[in-house]
Amino acid sequence: MMPAPQSLSCQIAALADGSRTASSLAEAALDCARTFSDLNAFVALDEPIVMQQARAADARRRLGTPLSPIDGVPIAIKDNYLTLDYPTTACSNALPSEPSGQDATVVAGLRSAGAIVFGKTNMHEWAYGATNSTSSFGATRNPRDTSRITGGSSGGSAAAVAAGIVAVALGSDTGGSVRIPSAACGIYGFKPSYGRVSRHGVLPLSWSLDAPGPMAATLEDIRLLLPHLFGQDPLDPSTRWARPFEHAPPATRPRLVHLTGPGLERSEDVDGALRNTLSVADIALGESTIDHMESYFAAWEAILHCEAAAYHLQRDRVDFAAYSTVTQAHLAAGGMLDGLDLIKAQRIRGHLIETLTKGLGDWDALVLPTLPVVAPLATDDWQEFSGRRVTTQDSMTWFCWIGNLAGLPCITIPVPRAPGQLPVGMMLMGRPGRDEALLSVAQWIDDRLCKRS
Amino acid sequence: MMPAPQSLSCQIAALADGSRTASSLAEAALDCARTFSDLNAFVALDEPIVMQQARAADARRRLGTPLSPIDGVPIAIKDNYLTLDYPTTACSNALPSEPSGQDATVVAGLRSAGAIVFGKTNMHEWAYGATNSTSSFGATRNPRDTSRITGGSSGGSAAAVAAGIVAVALGSDTGGSVRIPSAACGIYGFKPSYGRVSRHGVLPLSWSLDAPGPMAATLEDIRLLLPHLFGQDPLDPSTRWARPFEHAPPATRPRLVHLTGPGLERSEDVDGALRNTLSVADIALGESTIDHMESYFAAWEAILHCEAAAYHLQRDRVDFAAYSTVTQAHLAAGGMLDGLDLIKAQRIRGHLIETLTKGLGDWDALVLPTLPVVAPLATDDWQEFSGRRVTTQDSMTWFCWIGNLAGLPCITIPVPRAPGQLPVGMMLMGRPGRDEALLSVAQWIDDRLCKRS
Repeated sequence: MMPAPQSLSCQIAALADGSRTASSLAEAALDCARTFSDLNAFVALDEPIVMQQARAADARRRLGTPLSPIDGVPIAIKDNYLTLDYPTTACSNALPSEPSGQDATVVAGLRSAGAIVFGKTNMHEWAYGATNSTSSFGATRNPRDTSRITGGSSGGSAAAVAAGIVAVALGSDTGGSVRIPSAACGIYGFKPSYGRVSRHGVLPLSWSLDAPGPMAATLEDIRLLLPHLFGQDPLDPSTRWARPFEHAPPATRPRLVHLTGPGLERSEDVDGALRNTLSVADIALGESTIDHMESYFAAWEAILHCEAAAYHLQRDRVDFAAYSTVTQAHLAAGGMLDGLDLIKAQRIRGHLIETLTKGLGDWDALVLPTLPVVAPLATDDWQEFSGRRVTTQDSMTWFCWIGNLAGLPCITIPVPRAPGQLPVGMMLMGRPGRDEALLSVAQWIDDRLCKRS
Repeated sequence: MMPAPQSLSCQIAALADGSRTASSLAEAALDCARTFSDLNAFVALDEPIVMQQARAADARRRLGTPLSPIDGVPIAIKDNYLTLDYPTTACSNALPSEPSGQDATVVAGLRSAGAIVFGKTNMHEWAYGATNSTSSFGATRNPRDTSRITGGSSGGSAAAVAAGIVAVALGSDTGGSVRIPSAACGIYGFKPSYGRVSRHGVLPLSWSLDAPGPMAATLEDIRLLLPHLFGQDPLDPSTRWARPFEHAPPATRPRLVHLTGPGLERSEDVDGALRNTLSVADIALGESTIDHMESYFAAWEAILHCEAAAYHLQRDRVDFAAYSTVTQAHLAAGGMLDGLDLIKAQRIRGHLIETLTKGLGDWDALVLPTLPVVAPLATDDWQEFSGRRVTTQDSMTWFCWIGNLAGLPCITIPVPRAPGQLPVGMMLMGRPGRDEALLSVAQWIDDRLCKRS
């Protein structure tokens, strides 16, 4: 069987010029998924469901009435998005295994553009963790090295893209869950500005932090998907001011500020890879430390656990015994916070936004490694780097939560690595609501890097 | 001494045609303030401060360079707005009596338009109550009947306008504090949509409920002031999406929904006055009850007390002994709420917004009495109406908090009353952000009412 082109743009071109059918793309993807079943990337994948959609797409092409350029392209969906045909379990034993019978708003949008809802991807239980080791379907394995974790919570989506099963996938990001596995698996992942993409039908973790986002093998593919995701949704009040995707002019030599210092440590390997990349790309670069990182981190934790507890502890007919012990403990902690703590956390959040957007002068993007370490071994519970010893869980969200707490658009792009080296991601953060400008900055940089094989 | 014209529009015209000077308006206002000093409307009023501003305004007029049409008009400012020259005490013994040396953003805006910061008005301590009986400067008296309260917390501003000392004043509104005393004193009061007017430099009561607003003797005067108040302020993040004031087309026969039922009771006198007015004005009227009023009220109370506690309990060098006993109790209660309560309250708030804006069909304004009773006697701690017996405090916020919890623009307009009867206000609530449309509806109704003498 002919393998499918591994980028969305190539798949779009192949469908448009008739060199491939949606059915042949779907069959290739199903075949590839079987080949890489040991990755445990998919928790629901049904050939009849996939092929029925593909045949309908092919029929539309034959009639000359494709719904959009992505009509017929298979997309993998994280298992916390409601989907018409597949169950939605959030990889928790506490949810029923029957399909909900409805699509999340963004899934419905992709479907109405003809995209094929290919399968549901493995994730960290309830998106409440960043390793993808805790899942009712078992851990996900990293395609770059199956002894290593993908990171999470959108680990299945990252593995599916990195293994070449699909070109694009959806994840969700509350403290890095799109960016973390994208970086660990060597692909691109984009977390939009808070409120730019509808969360309706995406099981919540924390309302004021959650953002759905695309994951892809190329930057161009991210850009092709975003117009299908951005915009207002009357069913998600947070999108009240969301603008649709707008094409931004290409960036001219962007000014970046590299964030460093206490609380922002990283391994020598990762730091070297990032600095080398910044130097190769000839970027105008400042460097700045951020004071009070520990307060900001505490604010993110407080908001996360309290909002998660408010959702989970107030669910109807909830079976807490079916939650993992760690998640039970997080929810209990969230339930213990008092209102003053929560308000204080929200005010500290305001200070962070102020510091990042106004306190660092004029910048086009803030830059950090996406992760302080390469993808950890599945057997390692602790990570050590630059004098720090933290849990593998904490090492995954180490930098990423900043973007959620501040509501900034963020992207991770893989940096050049020597053959055999594990992937390292560069994270760029933009100004709130200026997702398109961030994408232009990322493109400017990506164009200057040696492309990975 | 010639009395000053009692409306802003007349004062603007008199200044423009040269028939009055700013100095003569200021002298008349000072004279009137002395005449009505028993009302206890002002807590800071300094002749040199006033006259210096007036002479500067007159000099600009002589040079033909007035700063705006309101250059030279005296405006009274509630004592929780920071002002360059006057102290700002929030009528609490816990604040210093020296001037802060800065203007709140809206005060600075009015000053840069040439308006004269006339004096600081009496208010309920910290704006944390709605009677104006608790104030470090003593209670305010109602100009319509000095044995009665003005209501609060902007009671001094209402008394100053109702007594004819100034044509316009600023108040602030967290649960009705602009509308309550406006209704009780028989003037117009406008609470803008949440986030439409900057609160920077206005001492906070509750961030997510507070709104500054104008109070005036005529509806036209409200309309003349709003353009000076609306718009974005980088120092108040809640104004991020604030549009400047836009002129709206006149309303055509508006569709109103009258809210009634459990939780929305009112005295026979007030109900009769409102229904009679609605009938006289020939308004297209529906009527609707709102379920779960007690939950919505609890949500408003929870948010109010918790946010107030977060501000007051975290102030530096705070002297709690100087707070009134009631305020101390409120703050302690706010400090006891847990984070889940607060999140639950914010979600209930979302349901109220949904119910009012989508659940009641198509409407141009919601209508209620502003108060369930006329201005209470200063000696009455309890009010009885329609089977209810509630504290005077609770009777003041009875309907008004709805507009704060839902973030809606609200206006109170005095309805026609027989000679000797105490004022009754009609409250109209508009759709969020559509302040101008609400003003047009109010104008349509006001034009059809017999004007009060």
